[in-house]
Amino acid sequence: MSTTNRLVNPLLTDLYELTMAYAYWKHGRHEEHAVFDLFFRKNPFRGEFTVFAGLEEVLSFLEGFRYSDEQVDYLRTLLPESEPAFFEWLRRVDLSGVTVHAVSEGSIVFPRVPLLRVEGPLALAQLLETTLLTLVNYPSLVATNAARFRLAAGMRKTLLEFGLRRAQGPDGGMSASRYAFMGGFDATSNVLAGMLFGIPPRGTHAHSYVQSFQSLEQIPSRVVPASDGQSVDLVERTLAIRDRLRFNHTNQGELAAFVSYALAFPESFLALVDTYDTLNSGVPNFICVAFALMEMGHQPIGVRLDSGDLAFLSKATRNMFASCGELLNKDVSHFKIAASNDIDEAVLMSLNSEGHEIDIFGIGTRLVTCESQPALGCVYKLVEIGGSPRIKLSQDLQKVTIPGRKEAYRLYGQRGFPLLDLMVQAGETPPHPGDQILCRHPFDETKRVLVTPSRVMPLHQCVWNGGRMAAERSIHDIRADVLSQLASFRQDHLRLLNPTPYKVSVSAKLYDFIHRLWVEESPLPELR
Amino acid sequence: MSTTNRLVNPLLTDLYELTMAYAYWKHGRHEEHAVFDLFFRKNPFRGEFTVFAGLEEVLSFLEGFRYSDEQVDYLRTLLPESEPAFFEWLRRVDLSGVTVHAVSEGSIVFPRVPLLRVEGPLALAQLLETTLLTLVNYPSLVATNAARFRLAAGMRKTLLEFGLRRAQGPDGGMSASRYAFMGGFDATSNVLAGMLFGIPPRGTHAHSYVQSFQSLEQIPSRVVPASDGQSVDLVERTLAIRDRLRFNHTNQGELAAFVSYALAFPESFLALVDTYDTLNSGVPNFICVAFALMEMGHQPIGVRLDSGDLAFLSKATRNMFASCGELLNKDVSHFKIAASNDIDEAVLMSLNSEGHEIDIFGIGTRLVTCESQPALGCVYKLVEIGGSPRIKLSQDLQKVTIPGRKEAYRLYGQRGFPLLDLMVQAGETPPHPGDQILCRHPFDETKRVLVTPSRVMPLHQCVWNGGRMAAERSIHDIRADVLSQLASFRQDHLRLLNPTPYKVSVSAKLYDFIHRLWVEESPLPELR
Repeated sequence: MSTTNRLVNPLLTDLYELTMAYAYWKHGRHEEHAVFDLFFRKNPFRGEFTVFAGLEEVLSFLEGFRYSDEQVDYLRTLLPESEPAFFEWLRRVDLSGVTVHAVSEGSIVFPRVPLLRVEGPLALAQLLETTLLTLVNYPSLVATNAARFRLAAGMRKTLLEFGLRRAQGPDGGMSASRYAFMGGFDATSNVLAGMLFGIPPRGTHAHSYVQSFQSLEQIPSRVVPASDGQSVDLVERTLAIRDRLRFNHTNQGELAAFVSYALAFPESFLALVDTYDTLNSGVPNFICVAFALMEMGHQPIGVRLDSGDLAFLSKATRNMFASCGELLNKDVSHFKIAASNDIDEAVLMSLNSEGHEIDIFGIGTRLVTCESQPALGCVYKLVEIGGSPRIKLSQDLQKVTIPGRKEAYRLYGQRGFPLLDLMVQAGETPPHPGDQILCRHPFDETKRVLVTPSRVMPLHQCVWNGGRMAAERSIHDIRADVLSQLASFRQDHLRLLNPTPYKVSVSAKLYDFIHRLWVEESPLPELR
Repeated sequence: MSTTNRLVNPLLTDLYELTMAYAYWKHGRHEEHAVFDLFFRKNPFRGEFTVFAGLEEVLSFLEGFRYSDEQVDYLRTLLPESEPAFFEWLRRVDLSGVTVHAVSEGSIVFPRVPLLRVEGPLALAQLLETTLLTLVNYPSLVATNAARFRLAAGMRKTLLEFGLRRAQGPDGGMSASRYAFMGGFDATSNVLAGMLFGIPPRGTHAHSYVQSFQSLEQIPSRVVPASDGQSVDLVERTLAIRDRLRFNHTNQGELAAFVSYALAFPESFLALVDTYDTLNSGVPNFICVAFALMEMGHQPIGVRLDSGDLAFLSKATRNMFASCGELLNKDVSHFKIAASNDIDEAVLMSLNSEGHEIDIFGIGTRLVTCESQPALGCVYKLVEIGGSPRIKLSQDLQKVTIPGRKEAYRLYGQRGFPLLDLMVQAGETPPHPGDQILCRHPFDETKRVLVTPSRVMPLHQCVWNGGRMAAERSIHDIRADVLSQLASFRQDHLRLLNPTPYKVSVSAKLYDFIHRLWVEESPLPELR
């Protein structure tokens, strides 16, 4: 598979990766074996979980990793001080000597646990940094955001991603559509994402469609085939129902727009009802057209609200459906109410607490731009070189790295919930179900816990070993994984407000190792 | 020119554009002449100006606008209710009947003034909506953000865009790099943006480079050619200077990393100095290596600070440069101090008020994600159809649209500053320098002003008339335009905090027209 976007290639990187690669090469260090961890330090959105996404694109990028002659020629102009032989090396590099272990795409993940562990020749592993970060950061962020919207809306609501026009970058919307679906959305407005990723596209009409009509005279062909094979004048039928319901005060242009739209899509009629006045014009007009369609054996979908008080309007709309249905003896139980207009987590929660009748949410800007935190801070840190571990010190404990090659496991308790994630040194005996294991906070010596797991799941698998090792996974499978995990964690970890942190621990052996190195590397100032 | 990203094609759109197009086609309305305005309602970032960007990509998109057979086949599966002839129509559509007027790319623009006016067959003009919004929204947002950073940093500082790894979308970074440069940045870390857009790429090394060294023994070849043709052992020279400056307490691995980097890039040595301890290790190590390079006739660039109190550290670093320079009689006046680490507008303003010695700012996440407002709300509204004007009503005055085809002019005062932007009805006599013109607020009847402009600049030009009309412009020209405009506006309009709003007015004739239509279209409820 090639990357979705052709611009994802080895030159989509920061220049300093190349200057470092040259300096390593210049000193004959480029082939030294290095290990880098890609991880984040803090869950986004004040939450306590993250959904890992972007791995399929990472693998496609690795598969296509090669500098073209044109690219190498360009790099030569950027690095005029460099020796020509370096560019010959660059022209020939490939990732046959690189190994990547990764968490499975769609996993719920936590701070500090490596999402990717990249091993191989120092210069090459370094050259991958920026692109890997770019391919993981935003996908994971938007998948996490989507999962949070899913939790806020509840599992039974339909969630539509509507963000393309407000997404960052002319095609940032492509990633948004893909990873919002992966994180638990049901469909997208983005047609190209539908075509390329197999996500169902959805959409009806805009206000401009309604505005473009002024009267019923603008509909030349008013006849729609009824399910019994006869043809019926939809305008006539609609006006007849309108008379019976006494909805004569509604906007004529809007009625014409709805009738015309129903004539075009008799089997999937969904009307945007807020162009003029939702309750005094839009919903009544919808009901007239919808009832007319039903008399001809068609099944209308419903309405979309795009402004105003969505809780109130949805309830009032549902009531109007019910009373009109009762009056004309029609079954309106299948009518759906969709809502859009700057919906975010807080709006969803407030709608829930107030009560509403919305079945479908269309969510755009706040989802795709991840307004409340528009970047995930994944980093890529050197943890071992030439077999010797490296620690990155910082005054800020959160920024101290966990040195060396590590394996990670998820330990499950008797009730089936994950208890914590445990990192151990590569080569340590893996934790075993039924054994009592001492799990320690990586930096706080007082925080320890004894765990006897009922089940142990390794978090990493080798996805690249000189070539792709992992089978390609469909976005539908990954999405199903996300949704089943959202159900499998203790809900207090996933709570949107003030959630309980999930523990990420290290083995006693790794703890001792970290602290030995930490003390060794820390400066010992002398006071006189 | 084709679009930078191949994914920018007619299918990068919302499905409802296609369902609307079908409904128009079905009712024979698809060829009706329609006029749409693309504009925004509110300047971003609590500011009072916006930089318009994205036009070159818009034109490339229009040039390539064509549905492929494969795309049409896909659309057929999405719209099973539609008549086959519609897809035949879609297969043949092109933009030969479409006209686009636009503000010049890089213009400083204000709410309500159309950035694009799209005219042509209703269905086609509708089909362009989402993609045009996607191509204008984020580019304009990030260009505006960049211009604000430029204003905050001052015209003489060097601004580097470092955001690729945190940008939204695997290639959202490409747009960020391009439009940040357009908005006034000097360079980018993004190599591919350098290659494709001609933006200068910049970069040195990361912490991992420093961490990968433990001692000077890791440098096999220590010899660097001096400018006098002789070769000199840089390690020896560095250690000699280190002895003289008594910097024997610094981190050895870091010193080795700096020497090795200087050996690779003797003409462009810039060191990241905060891996271990900025003032006790990083800066002293840099000085030793830099002075050694200078003795050999090379010119080091300087240091980069990436953590801590940047105001304090930059001043302390400058002092250390000066005192060491004095001690060893070296000219350190050209040493640059670069700073990075979550820099935003507020940080820049606080640095300015506190005083600092930073020459170069590297700005990433906060620039490219536009954290303080991650989306610009451009909209695309129908303003005329079949020669008859359309107004979109709303309870919210800001959302009422200005109907009909309009021209817009920028009126300049005697002191050379723009006074206001004036919209008039298409066909009205344009405002003329020296004439007194009544300029009205579009909705508030009490807000009027008499203007006698010294100069009048039309804001729109025809950029597409069945084919591209505007010459291609280089990003360097557009960037120069942005910077010269930033200097040409009254500075209180551009102020970052609590700026003065710039007036956008309408002519008396347009005012009357808006209000006549507004009243006509407003419902007249009856109370009994």
